[in-house]
Amino acid sequence: MSNVFGPEYVRAIAPYQAGKPISEVAREFGLEEAAIIKLASNENPLGMPASAKKAMMDAMDDGGRYPDSNGFELKAVLSARYGVPENWITLGNGSNDILELAAHALVRPGEEVMYAQYSFAVYPLATQAVGAQGISVPARDFGHDLPAMQKAITPDTRLIFIANPNNPTGTFLPPAAIEAFLEKVPKNVVVVLDEAYNEYLDPDLQYESTDWVKKYPNLLISRTFSKVYGLAGLRIGFGIAQPEITGLLNRVRQPFNVNSLAQAAAMAVLKDKAFLEKSAKLNADGYHQLTAVFDEMKLEYVPSYGNFVLVRVGDDDEAGARVNLALLKKGIIVRPVGSYGLPKWLRITIGLPEENAAVISALKDVLA
Amino acid sequence: MSNVFGPEYVRAIAPYQAGKPISEVAREFGLEEAAIIKLASNENPLGMPASAKKAMMDAMDDGGRYPDSNGFELKAVLSARYGVPENWITLGNGSNDILELAAHALVRPGEEVMYAQYSFAVYPLATQAVGAQGISVPARDFGHDLPAMQKAITPDTRLIFIANPNNPTGTFLPPAAIEAFLEKVPKNVVVVLDEAYNEYLDPDLQYESTDWVKKYPNLLISRTFSKVYGLAGLRIGFGIAQPEITGLLNRVRQPFNVNSLAQAAAMAVLKDKAFLEKSAKLNADGYHQLTAVFDEMKLEYVPSYGNFVLVRVGDDDEAGARVNLALLKKGIIVRPVGSYGLPKWLRITIGLPEENAAVISALKDVLA
Repeated sequence: MSNVFGPEYVRAIAPYQAGKPISEVAREFGLEEAAIIKLASNENPLGMPASAKKAMMDAMDDGGRYPDSNGFELKAVLSARYGVPENWITLGNGSNDILELAAHALVRPGEEVMYAQYSFAVYPLATQAVGAQGISVPARDFGHDLPAMQKAITPDTRLIFIANPNNPTGTFLPPAAIEAFLEKVPKNVVVVLDEAYNEYLDPDLQYESTDWVKKYPNLLISRTFSKVYGLAGLRIGFGIAQPEITGLLNRVRQPFNVNSLAQAAAMAVLKDKAFLEKSAKLNADGYHQLTAVFDEMKLEYVPSYGNFVLVRVGDDDEAGARVNLALLKKGIIVRPVGSYGLPKWLRITIGLPEENAAVISALKDVLA
Repeated sequence: MSNVFGPEYVRAIAPYQAGKPISEVAREFGLEEAAIIKLASNENPLGMPASAKKAMMDAMDDGGRYPDSNGFELKAVLSARYGVPENWITLGNGSNDILELAAHALVRPGEEVMYAQYSFAVYPLATQAVGAQGISVPARDFGHDLPAMQKAITPDTRLIFIANPNNPTGTFLPPAAIEAFLEKVPKNVVVVLDEAYNEYLDPDLQYESTDWVKKYPNLLISRTFSKVYGLAGLRIGFGIAQPEITGLLNRVRQPFNVNSLAQAAAMAVLKDKAFLEKSAKLNADGYHQLTAVFDEMKLEYVPSYGNFVLVRVGDDDEAGARVNLALLKKGIIVRPVGSYGLPKWLRITIGLPEENAAVISALKDVLA
C-alpha cells in the first residue's frame, strides 16, 4: 500500500533541512537554551526592531479579521519606494513564497528550471515540486557562471533563478554582468533575480534592479523582510515584475498568503532607517571580525557580500559535519552545507560581536 | 508579446475574490471605517482572544528568528488533543495552505479533482492551479450529494474535497453518510475533509473524524484557527492524515510556511475554552436572531451549521448583486455569492447582536 499517492516527482523530493531551532539543539544536546548561540539561518542578530513590534501591537486588535488579500497599504509604500506601479508588486509569505509562486505559475511538469551549483536550496525544491527538470550549472569561483548559464538554455527552459548576493556562498555579480545576461536571455524565459541579501551591499555596490524590470518583461525581482529588516519569524517578502508575470503569480497565490501583522511590521521597518543602518554597520564590522581571524588561522573563506561567511574547516569530506557537531556540543549552531555539495565548508551567519567571538573561540578549540 | 509566459491552465484562472476589507469599502463609498460592519468573511465577531494576544507578545522577542519549520511545540499540543502521532500533522498557512498542498502533492496536470457544486471557491482554484480537471458534482439541497460524487469517480480522480459544514451554504453531512462514502471511495483517491467550521457544531452533532483517519490512509482532515478560534489574520491551520500523505504534503510545503506568532497564538487559544464556549454561544444566539427575522420576513434561507447564513434576497438573478450594493452603501459588507452560481442569495456572517440587528434593519430597508 505504500507510494500509491501522488506523482513520482513529489515522492522523490527530499524535504528542505531547516537550520536547527535553538529549542531543538537544547533538547538534543542537553544544553540551556539561553547559553546557545545560533548563527545558522542568516537572521539579523539584532532581532525584530522595536518599530515592528509597535506596529504589530497596533495591528493586533484586527487579528481576528482576514488580512487584506491585496495588501493595499503595503503595496502603496513599496510602490512609492521602488518607483513601480502597485500592480507590479506581489506580496509573499516570505520571499520563499515568491520563488515557489514563480515555479507554480510558469512551469509545467517536464519543462526546465535553471540555477547555479551552490545556490539556494529552495530553487531545486521548487523545481521538483512542479515536476520540472532542474538544470544545475557548475559554479565559477563559488558563484554564478552567467555565460555558461546562458549557453545551457534550451527550448524547454522556462525559469532561471539568479541569487545576488548568492546564498550559501556570498558571491556577488556586478550589475553589468546581470544586465548583459538579461539582454541575451530569450524573452519567453523568466529570470528570477533573488535579492534577499541586497540591503547588505555597500552603497557603492548598490544598483537599481527595478530599472531592469521596466526594461525586461521577463524579469521578476524577489526581495525579503527576513534578513536585514529582522522579520524572519513573520514571513513576508515581495516580488516586482511587469503586470503580465505579476498577474500570473497572483493567479496561483493563496488569497491570504501574507498575515496582517507581517504587513503592518513591514510598513514600519521600511521607515526605520536607523535600524537598517545599524544592522548594516554591525554586519560589516562582524564580517571584518570573523575574516580577520580566518586569515590569521589560515582558513580559506569565500569573500562574502551577505550576512554570512562560507569557511572551509578541513580538507576531507567529513570536515563540515565533524566540526558542525563539535560546535553544536559547545552550544553553537552554524550551517553545514554538505547538502549543497560543500562538505568541507560551514556557513556562519555574522552575529553580534560577542557571538562572533564565541564562534571564533569555539572554532579555534575544535580545529586545534 | 502577451501571454507568452506560463501554462494556459494558469493563465485561465480567475483569481479568488476576497471579501472587501473595511478600509477598501470606506475608500470606495466615502464612509467612516468605524461605522462599517463587516459580516462577509465568516470571521469570529469577538476578534482575536486576549489569550492569543498575550502569547504573541511573549513570542515577539523571537520575531527576528525563522519560525520552527517543524512546529515542534504546536504539533505536540495538537497530537495530545487529537490523539494522533505528531508525524500525522501538517501545519499550514491557514487551512487554505493545507488544501493547496494536497492539490500540489497529489495531482498532476490532466488528472481529476472533485468537489460539490456550491462548495468552497478554493477547491476549483487549487485544481486549476495544478492544471487538473475540476469535476463539480451537482448539489443536493445545497449540500454534497455523496452518492452522486461516488458515482462520478473515474480512474483519473485523485482528490475529492468535502466540506463539513459546507461553505457558503452551511449544510451538514451526518457522520454516517461520510463514513459510508469513505468506505466506498477507491483507496488511491484521497479525500480531503475540510472541517473549517467544525467547532460551531452543537455538541450532540460532533463526531470524531480522527477515528476515520486511523482507518483510512486516503483521508486528510483539514482544520483552521481562522474561524471559531479568531486567528484569521495570523494564518494558521493544520491537516491530519497518516504518515504517507503527511510526508507528501511536507515535501511540497514551504519550509517556513507558518509564522512564529501564529504558532504561539494557536497554542494559547487551544487552551482557551472560555473563549471557545463564548464564541459558540454567541454564534448560536446570533443564528436564532437572524433566522427568526428571516422567517418573519418570509426570506428563504438554508439551515446553517456554520457561523453564517445563506439567505435568498430576491427572485431574479440580479438580486444578490443589487442588495449587496445597497447594503454596501449603508456601510454593511456581506458576501455576494453569484460567483458560486447563487446570484439570488447573500451569505451573511453571524456577528455581534448589534451587528446582526444592523444588518436586519438594513435588509428591511433595502427589501421594503
